[in-house]
Amino acid sequence: MFTATEKEAVPRTIGLITDFGLTDPYVGQMKAVLAKKAPHCPVVDISHGVEPFNVAQAGFFLAASYVHFPDDAVILAVVDPGVGTGRRIVGVEIGDRLLIAPDNGLLTLALKFAWSEARAYDLSRAVDAPKKVSHTFHGRDVFAPLAAWFALGGKPASLGEEIAPEDMVTRTWSEPNISADRARCHVLHIDRFGNCVLNLEAGSLGTPAALRLTSPAGGPLAYATRYADMPEGDPGLLEGSQGFLEIAVNQRSAAKRFGLSMGDEIELSWER
Amino acid sequence: MFTATEKEAVPRTIGLITDFGLTDPYVGQMKAVLAKKAPHCPVVDISHGVEPFNVAQAGFFLAASYVHFPDDAVILAVVDPGVGTGRRIVGVEIGDRLLIAPDNGLLTLALKFAWSEARAYDLSRAVDAPKKVSHTFHGRDVFAPLAAWFALGGKPASLGEEIAPEDMVTRTWSEPNISADRARCHVLHIDRFGNCVLNLEAGSLGTPAALRLTSPAGGPLAYATRYADMPEGDPGLLEGSQGFLEIAVNQRSAAKRFGLSMGDEIELSWER
Amino acid sequence: MFTATEKEAVPRTIGLITDFGLTDPYVGQMKAVLAKKAPHCPVVDISHGVEPFNVAQAGFFLAASYVHFPDDAVILAVVDPGVGTGRRIVGVEIGDRLLIAPDNGLLTLALKFAWSEARAYDLSRAVDAPKKVSHTFHGRDVFAPLAAWFALGGKPASLGEEIAPEDMVTRTWSEPNISADRARCHVLHIDRFGNCVLNLEAGSLGTPAALRLTSPAGGPLAYATRYADMPEGDPGLLEGSQGFLEIAVNQRSAAKRFGLSMGDEIELSWER
Repeated sequence: MFTATEKEAVPRTIGLITDFGLTDPYVGQMKAVLAKKAPHCPVVDISHGVEPFNVAQAGFFLAASYVHFPDDAVILAVVDPGVGTGRRIVGVEIGDRLLIAPDNGLLTLALKFAWSEARAYDLSRAVDAPKKVSHTFHGRDVFAPLAAWFALGGKPASLGEEIAPEDMVTRTWSEPNISADRARCHVLHIDRFGNCVLNLEAGSLGTPAALRLTSPAGGPLAYATRYADMPEGDPGLLEGSQGFLEIAVNQRSAAKRFGLSMGDEIELSWER
Repeated sequence: MFTATEKEAVPRTIGLITDFGLTDPYVGQMKAVLAKKAPHCPVVDISHGVEPFNVAQAGFFLAASYVHFPDDAVILAVVDPGVGTGRRIVGVEIGDRLLIAPDNGLLTLALKFAWSEARAYDLSRAVDAPKKVSHTFHGRDVFAPLAAWFALGGKPASLGEEIAPEDMVTRTWSEPNISADRARCHVLHIDRFGNCVLNLEAGSLGTPAALRLTSPAGGPLAYATRYADMPEGDPGLLEGSQGFLEIAVNQRSAAKRFGLSMGDEIELSWER
Repeated sequence: MFTATEKEAVPRTIGLITDFGLTDPYVGQMKAVLAKKAPHCPVVDISHGVEPFNVAQAGFFLAASYVHFPDDAVILAVVDPGVGTGRRIVGVEIGDRLLIAPDNGLLTLALKFAWSEARAYDLSRAVDAPKKVSHTFHGRDVFAPLAAWFALGGKPASLGEEIAPEDMVTRTWSEPNISADRARCHVLHIDRFGNCVLNLEAGSLGTPAALRLTSPAGGPLAYATRYADMPEGDPGLLEGSQGFLEIAVNQRSAAKRFGLSMGDEIELSWER
């Protein structure tokens, strides 16, 4: 079915997120397949450093990144603990961009801010297409040919049925619990600098006064929109560049300061 | 000699394997040279995370990856403990693909499955071509210009003499020792997930019954073709995606389970 | 101001150096912006593994790498502890290549060998151009659009005023202290193999006899131009491939041998 003749003039950019790392040859083999099947399509690595099987982290990378891509980009996110089982492959169009992933909740966070304009498709038939599909590496044998096919002009509707976005697998970590003076949320990601990204959209708390981290560790947090606004060496809650709130310390590690790890549930409080 | 006028219409894709890592600027400098000398040729990184000087691991990366590239790709593998000595540079054509490496056994494993169709060349004269060659970084100063020249249409036969493939340096780790109920082999690579890739071609043991790892550690292994076929948490011998057998545990590290390291010699046994 | 109509026929190659790492999605987002704004310009990663905030190391990566790029390349180096403050953005033309960085000394080492032919510009107005600029991630929101604009033919003089190169921030680690029989210098970088790159230009000591490392550790050093010239297992001072002198041990780690770390001040002595 990948031999359809639909074509568009402009090759689409392909973005990639995986948990394959860059030491193993897995990402290189995916890109070799892309170079073979879609030779004129630019490929942009978002990250291959997702913690193995960490769907929440991959979901954050995708939600924070896809908007920066060309308007018609195809973005592939493969963190796939269910490879070789019957899990579906899904695609979501947001505007002209297309996000593709296993149906395991990876798309939940990206969809959250684009629910009304999203169209979802079941693309599982892609598994039947290639001649030789390994049971363990769909990234190379199923997802890469699928992305190449879309990048050359293939349409989701010609491969699979439209499905209701709410029928896809969702993840609870996408929803924080916010009340008048308190929020319970999760650490989606800790970056190289020790900033702890929360599943709280930037601006979702307004400009809270007397803000504190109350669990698991405790301490006051300045609310800031730039590192330079935070008192030297003091922690803050920052409207970060990724569209989410981050616990941060200017030029230090907030993760070390508070002993936070990815996936931790935390609580913030502020003056009502 | 790199000014030959032979040219082909289509720029060839260039694949890269090195042990240079991605922190140092070495790979970037190789790619800068490629961007300068072969500006329209796509470049695909297979891996730059080969353990320093580990020719066996690089040989596995190459053998497992080159078949996924475009049919006319040029693939450069530079793990080169002998740089600055008299070691040869060799190129092997398999079909229309061209693999280039120092003559130190790196090509042995790839050749093993393509012996009859391979044509080998001594490309050592490439060292004489560039104006300024460092004695320590042939990756940038010799191999990258050489790959660029081939990617633009250069022919091995116009640069160096054809040689017999069996005259190239070979490595003993490419050959396992298989009997009726026992195999001695090596761990070629341990991947990010802890899967231990062996120098045993997928399928080379048939479907062994009562399979066991007998050395250095011991324990039963299920024989499986997909992660989902392995009992939860139990180890197996998997027909992996790389064309070789892998000792694996679904969503766990087989390397940790059995205390295996790259290069280890291991023994498997099964019912005769 | 990024809508200027100046254009050139050939898209310029864009080189990148950052301290963002490859696990976080930051580099991917910069490259997404480049794919969107300058879709036909090749992008070459020099390194994203600069130690966080280590301007000296980034300055070495840039000085050692830019000469290998196409003659008209645009090279962006973003190690930017002052992001969100009033620090300037500067660009330096060396021949037809353009180097762009925050004005924090990152360009000092590259300029040192090209002082007479360099033209410097204040490009800080770039901050005003994009519609939505985060205060914490100028790499994506300011530097990437700026590089794209130059790569498509923009001219520094049409964006900002020419400034005197000596008005830019400089760093003292760019200057070693060399006398007749002694040199005090710094470790700019320690590479994957443990080689310690010094801020001493290759050849700047001539061919010193009875060379010794005298501080912080002590011991004799062979002077060598290739690894194979160093006695097996013995350390040497090597005219490395990067244009600088390196303390090295063939196939071993010189950093471990002498307990050296990046940034260390060391002393060498030799016979007068």
